[in-house]
Amino acid sequence: MASDDISRSFLRIRQQSLAACERLEIEDYGLQAEAFTSPPKWHLAHTSWFFETFLLKPCLEGYEACNPLYEELFNSYYNGVGGQYARSQRGLLSRPTVAEVLSYRQQVDRAIIELLDDDSHPQRDTVLQRCRLGIQHEQQHQELFYTDLKYSLFANPLLPAFAELSAGWRPPIFPAVEQQWRQYEGGLFEAGLPVDAVDFSFDNESPAVRVYLEPFALSNRLVTNGEYQAFVDDGGYKNHQHWLADGWTLAQEERWQRPLYWLDRDDGGWEFTLFGLRRRDPHAPVCHLSGYEADAYASWLGARLPTEFEWECAARKQAFTPLVFDADRLNPQPASGDIPLLQLYDACWQWTGSAYRPYPGFSAGGGAIGEYNGKFMANQWVLKGGSCVSQSGHVRPTYRNFFYPSDRWQFSGLRLARDV
Amino acid sequence: MASDDISRSFLRIRQQSLAACERLEIEDYGLQAEAFTSPPKWHLAHTSWFFETFLLKPCLEGYEACNPLYEELFNSYYNGVGGQYARSQRGLLSRPTVAEVLSYRQQVDRAIIELLDDDSHPQRDTVLQRCRLGIQHEQQHQELFYTDLKYSLFANPLLPAFAELSAGWRPPIFPAVEQQWRQYEGGLFEAGLPVDAVDFSFDNESPAVRVYLEPFALSNRLVTNGEYQAFVDDGGYKNHQHWLADGWTLAQEERWQRPLYWLDRDDGGWEFTLFGLRRRDPHAPVCHLSGYEADAYASWLGARLPTEFEWECAARKQAFTPLVFDADRLNPQPASGDIPLLQLYDACWQWTGSAYRPYPGFSAGGGAIGEYNGKFMANQWVLKGGSCVSQSGHVRPTYRNFFYPSDRWQFSGLRLARDV
Amino acid sequence: MASDDISRSFLRIRQQSLAACERLEIEDYGLQAEAFTSPPKWHLAHTSWFFETFLLKPCLEGYEACNPLYEELFNSYYNGVGGQYARSQRGLLSRPTVAEVLSYRQQVDRAIIELLDDDSHPQRDTVLQRCRLGIQHEQQHQELFYTDLKYSLFANPLLPAFAELSAGWRPPIFPAVEQQWRQYEGGLFEAGLPVDAVDFSFDNESPAVRVYLEPFALSNRLVTNGEYQAFVDDGGYKNHQHWLADGWTLAQEERWQRPLYWLDRDDGGWEFTLFGLRRRDPHAPVCHLSGYEADAYASWLGARLPTEFEWECAARKQAFTPLVFDADRLNPQPASGDIPLLQLYDACWQWTGSAYRPYPGFSAGGGAIGEYNGKFMANQWVLKGGSCVSQSGHVRPTYRNFFYPSDRWQFSGLRLARDV
Amino acid sequence: MASDDISRSFLRIRQQSLAACERLEIEDYGLQAEAFTSPPKWHLAHTSWFFETFLLKPCLEGYEACNPLYEELFNSYYNGVGGQYARSQRGLLSRPTVAEVLSYRQQVDRAIIELLDDDSHPQRDTVLQRCRLGIQHEQQHQELFYTDLKYSLFANPLLPAFAELSAGWRPPIFPAVEQQWRQYEGGLFEAGLPVDAVDFSFDNESPAVRVYLEPFALSNRLVTNGEYQAFVDDGGYKNHQHWLADGWTLAQEERWQRPLYWLDRDDGGWEFTLFGLRRRDPHAPVCHLSGYEADAYASWLGARLPTEFEWECAARKQAFTPLVFDADRLNPQPASGDIPLLQLYDACWQWTGSAYRPYPGFSAGGGAIGEYNGKFMANQWVLKGGSCVSQSGHVRPTYRNFFYPSDRWQFSGLRLARDV
Repeated sequence: MASDDISRSFLRIRQQSLAACERLEIEDYGLQAEAFTSPPKWHLAHTSWFFETFLLKPCLEGYEACNPLYEELFNSYYNGVGGQYARSQRGLLSRPTVAEVLSYRQQVDRAIIELLDDDSHPQRDTVLQRCRLGIQHEQQHQELFYTDLKYSLFANPLLPAFAELSAGWRPPIFPAVEQQWRQYEGGLFEAGLPVDAVDFSFDNESPAVRVYLEPFALSNRLVTNGEYQAFVDDGGYKNHQHWLADGWTLAQEERWQRPLYWLDRDDGGWEFTLFGLRRRDPHAPVCHLSGYEADAYASWLGARLPTEFEWECAARKQAFTPLVFDADRLNPQPASGDIPLLQLYDACWQWTGSAYRPYPGFSAGGGAIGEYNGKFMANQWVLKGGSCVSQSGHVRPTYRNFFYPSDRWQFSGLRLARDV
Repeated sequence: MASDDISRSFLRIRQQSLAACERLEIEDYGLQAEAFTSPPKWHLAHTSWFFETFLLKPCLEGYEACNPLYEELFNSYYNGVGGQYARSQRGLLSRPTVAEVLSYRQQVDRAIIELLDDDSHPQRDTVLQRCRLGIQHEQQHQELFYTDLKYSLFANPLLPAFAELSAGWRPPIFPAVEQQWRQYEGGLFEAGLPVDAVDFSFDNESPAVRVYLEPFALSNRLVTNGEYQAFVDDGGYKNHQHWLADGWTLAQEERWQRPLYWLDRDDGGWEFTLFGLRRRDPHAPVCHLSGYEADAYASWLGARLPTEFEWECAARKQAFTPLVFDADRLNPQPASGDIPLLQLYDACWQWTGSAYRPYPGFSAGGGAIGEYNGKFMANQWVLKGGSCVSQSGHVRPTYRNFFYPSDRWQFSGLRLARDV
Repeated sequence: MASDDISRSFLRIRQQSLAACERLEIEDYGLQAEAFTSPPKWHLAHTSWFFETFLLKPCLEGYEACNPLYEELFNSYYNGVGGQYARSQRGLLSRPTVAEVLSYRQQVDRAIIELLDDDSHPQRDTVLQRCRLGIQHEQQHQELFYTDLKYSLFANPLLPAFAELSAGWRPPIFPAVEQQWRQYEGGLFEAGLPVDAVDFSFDNESPAVRVYLEPFALSNRLVTNGEYQAFVDDGGYKNHQHWLADGWTLAQEERWQRPLYWLDRDDGGWEFTLFGLRRRDPHAPVCHLSGYEADAYASWLGARLPTEFEWECAARKQAFTPLVFDADRLNPQPASGDIPLLQLYDACWQWTGSAYRPYPGFSAGGGAIGEYNGKFMANQWVLKGGSCVSQSGHVRPTYRNFFYPSDRWQFSGLRLARDV
Repeated sequence: MASDDISRSFLRIRQQSLAACERLEIEDYGLQAEAFTSPPKWHLAHTSWFFETFLLKPCLEGYEACNPLYEELFNSYYNGVGGQYARSQRGLLSRPTVAEVLSYRQQVDRAIIELLDDDSHPQRDTVLQRCRLGIQHEQQHQELFYTDLKYSLFANPLLPAFAELSAGWRPPIFPAVEQQWRQYEGGLFEAGLPVDAVDFSFDNESPAVRVYLEPFALSNRLVTNGEYQAFVDDGGYKNHQHWLADGWTLAQEERWQRPLYWLDRDDGGWEFTLFGLRRRDPHAPVCHLSGYEADAYASWLGARLPTEFEWECAARKQAFTPLVFDADRLNPQPASGDIPLLQLYDACWQWTGSAYRPYPGFSAGGGAIGEYNGKFMANQWVLKGGSCVSQSGHVRPTYRNFFYPSDRWQFSGLRLARDV
């Protein structure tokens, strides 16, 4: 990638983070309803910290840190960099103010452009590689911005809307897509990417691996709200039989009765969205499921979750259409179209039954930046695809997202699989 | 009190709440570091809720609530009114925004003035009585505004200052006041106030009660930072002997080593204040002690805490000088002057050894407003006096403040007592 | 007390601890359902440890400890002696076995008798004083043996009976005693005991103090199960109005619906007792109330808890009849008789509204033994009287028992008071 | 299997459970140091409950349950059977007594023999199948008996020995076995067992599955105490770099410094064993590691954990020598012998890097008994092999044991793997 290209790319992504905040009130920037969410302001600062820590400090001669305390304040989890301000306390940082964080961003932006402009930098390759990583990293936080904010706004009984729907915007109306099974042959399949692939990918997608798959079938589309309602109505949340033991225990403790943002009132079924409380669309995909709920639903139906390799195998048989993020479409839409597998990338992340573990031959990089992915490879499950809040160009068939099976605040849904 | 007087009084107090916020950034209004603190914005809203709930809704015909959900959002602890938004979550209310809360205040202010202007209101007495209570209530929250904010700012490693000292302001320098014992005779003493006292008092100060006191002595001034330092240096936090059992357990669990806001660095002793980090003044009173620490210090010295009645008996023997709040003096100052008991009201609240229990003959009023004080009369200790963040005209010798002996975030210090 | 007398007294008390255990299975000796209860075996060992630690080790030349590790294992809370095995883990000490603990007791018994026989011991006074304290201490644990065991057996769904009622034993049947108020004049009253009283008393009963009392009335008997049932039936556990705030919060958290050992079934009201599950007697005193429940009941009735001084003042106006413990009567019996205040000592401990604080002029003794009472003088409430599981000769009008207002597992009931 | 054979097998296994208890004191039968351990008496009762619930109640006409409350008391986790007494409270069941539980066992034994003797039982196949499962189930609890008891005894500062070494017993002394890598080719490999295999296996070992393996190497023996010591000495517990994030967090919270039962004293390295505190043998395998510690050690060395399939592939290339349990050998022994892979089954369970998930095509059986394995297939890791406390004939190459990666109380160690 030429210097100009990456600079443009960098500035565009940085600008997107600001654009997403335009609809916020200053009071919203500090919201953090649970430790696993982060305030908008913190996302803005941490993504800057990432560039500062992994590019500017090691590679830009004479760079002076904006504030030495930021090193700890905005470090997420890089023990190799140093200590971290307690994750659960991020909402307590009223200072730096929003204005100060924006100024911090500007300082970092200017310095990064200066660094990228230096074609003869002795570590030019590292600079470009880390800049690309920083860009992808910021895109991940742009997605988290929406998931975290949705969760935090939901803690407020006023149920404030993040945004109003644009005047005149109407959801496109499609005929409901019937559920169908797509069958795939078994055999040896190559998943993942070689370590030296030209296009960007995260280290957890490599190396390319061979896996043996039995024949399987995947659903042509995601499970809908209407279908999931039938599970709820059938006592799905009251019957231990469908559930993994850890899931059942958690569901009892936290008194789960329905998906996270569903509200059932006398006048029907609603759900909380970034556009406020809205009626549930029975044809839209059910969203914000934990892995346990997804697994229980599949079990109730006599189906199962796909493995990450089944999903990838099937997805790679189909032409890849890059996702385009649309800030007026912050909810997953009903399925439409006529390709074999619908809603692969643009609706909800899809829980797989695969534990998030390293691919055979994987090794994490050295130094603090090696903590990016590798150390999380335990106790989480892989999700494939992408969601309506994923950023343009960010996902691909080999992408491995990962969350704990107890997590519900992501835009996570479910595509069924079964043996054939 | 004439209608004009109380209206003026009302508006002045309401204005003071806003004035205190002038030095805040918008981002600060939502800060809540622990459940026992409340965000500035919440104080602004809750004090308005109090007037709305106990005056406007029952007494002003045609009054329409600003927002029906506020009834729950800004209810602190009045079960008789209804449910309450979780105390620990108050920092999650980014909405209503600051501007919306200010608008809520204005609506309430206008309606209260309208109500006060109605000389022929059928419940005129109740209106005046509750308005006076609302005013005192708002003064209490004005004090909490400072204590809570100090605590919440302290959670930020940047240690932001709430305010800069006014340019040119210098603390007055007084000669250190030597500690001396003031002796008081024993005998029968009348404490508290009759139920029908003319001036305002809280219900917990009544009725007037007779208590028998043995002769006792009180210290002429509060314990200083320097004196308390000697306790720390002598291993006071490492020796169980001085401590009440519950205090010792807590101090171990929470690893107390010194008072809450003390910081010891290589370059000496500092403390966090509303003006930021500042050097500890050895002559200033030690502040932000829990009751356990106060008791342990006294025990270490062979002295003890006064009872609430000893304190009141001694204080009432001395002319009462009403406190004047000064927004440039948000730290307790060293003792100065030559009256027998210094620093009664203007430095730190003074822990007593008296459990907060009702006076003989006390009965809480009926209805939700009866929950104001009575239901808290267990497990807390009485503090007497007032502090540098108490509001002008708010305290008096009979005033009974109360906190758990574990609480450290108030401006709470210590005046020694002993038997004679 | 002559050497023979105290030796006899010592041996009799030591024997009583063993007699109480006769009805246990070996499996029962280790039961500990919560940290605040202790297993029978631990009581047997700890009371021996007390004699060993405070008498044998300091006063008996050549005494060799049974096992050096016992110093920590059986230390309850004496920091001055050293560390303590975690209280919540006492049920995990399967070793020493019961037989080993009995052997430990015998070794201690022999050594104590040897020490008491030495009339010319240089610290003869200390020896006698501490032996008397050890005896009283063991009596306290004999009472705790019953309260703790009742609680621990209750955790077993089999609801095992500690004992069968002796064949042929029938509860005496008395006519129900009508509730009446006994009035007492106010004035100056001397409570407590001088420090140098001849008969044994605990340090927390001294010194004698003068208190001023307003006129008051006490109920002639304790509140009965039947009377308390009316409170439950009236929604007493669902109405915040009667409750102290901390009590209400706790009652909600722990879902209190009735007293600890009450069970309501289709076939009527039962309660768990040391004789197993038995029908509730409406005329027997309600027992195993927390202080919060006692206070809420009184508040519901428009009455209140007595202060510890009111109770003592009234009790001292009446001839004191020492309590006689009866191992066939491990439940509080209905009131009977015709003295002014019934059930002072032999039914249930009676919650007072007095916080457990030192008497004016109190000072705890030095050394580890000074930790016996003084350090607990915070956050607890005073209970007066005695109970059906108190040991013969143990209680008296000045006795101050103390527990947290949240505690329910003692034989604690309620005598009403009111202003007159 | 002929009726006689299975009856003999049944009685032998039942007898083994009693034999293991011979060295216990009655006081030990109720020990439960943590919720994840169970008391010896509970194991004795629960294994009987298993036969009663899944064989006698459904299949033996006229069978009357010993005690209807046992259904809940001794139900471990079968929601399909009904409620369960709280797992953490099992130590509180002093009743039924040991004698009563032994009597319960005898009743069950007699009834099972009666059932097995009925050759013409209409559900003969089910009876035999469940009896075999009950036998295997009891063997699993025989192993847990040792692991749980070891943990519970360790909570006692007296560090009591479960057993004395037999007089004259000496550990055999072997020359230390040098660590060597055994290489295995990659390719398609069949793991697991067909559903209809003749010999007994658990449902989680089926169906047979095909997996593709890259070439790999396994260590010829387990990691030794001496080798693990080097990791500790190198600061292994202080360096985040080697650890999975969840493991590091847990290790910090619980202050792990060394394996669970290691004790380091001035006079050298000791470990707690079922024979009491003994010197650590540097050549014995390191044992009682969590999965996190095992993974961190491997990472520190630049190696890794094997996958469950690598382990099984290698193990199946070698003749299977069934394990013989020896009650005088309750510690893992140093490696000896000259087969390629030593210590496969007789020393420590070996952590694999494989998440415990169902094999492709797996489905749990119906009814309560279907809860045996399937519902636990999340969040745990597979361990392969067997240990010194596994019972004779119980394990095999396809056996899949599973525990949380945080668990340390099993006899769990580590065999290294690496890519080749």
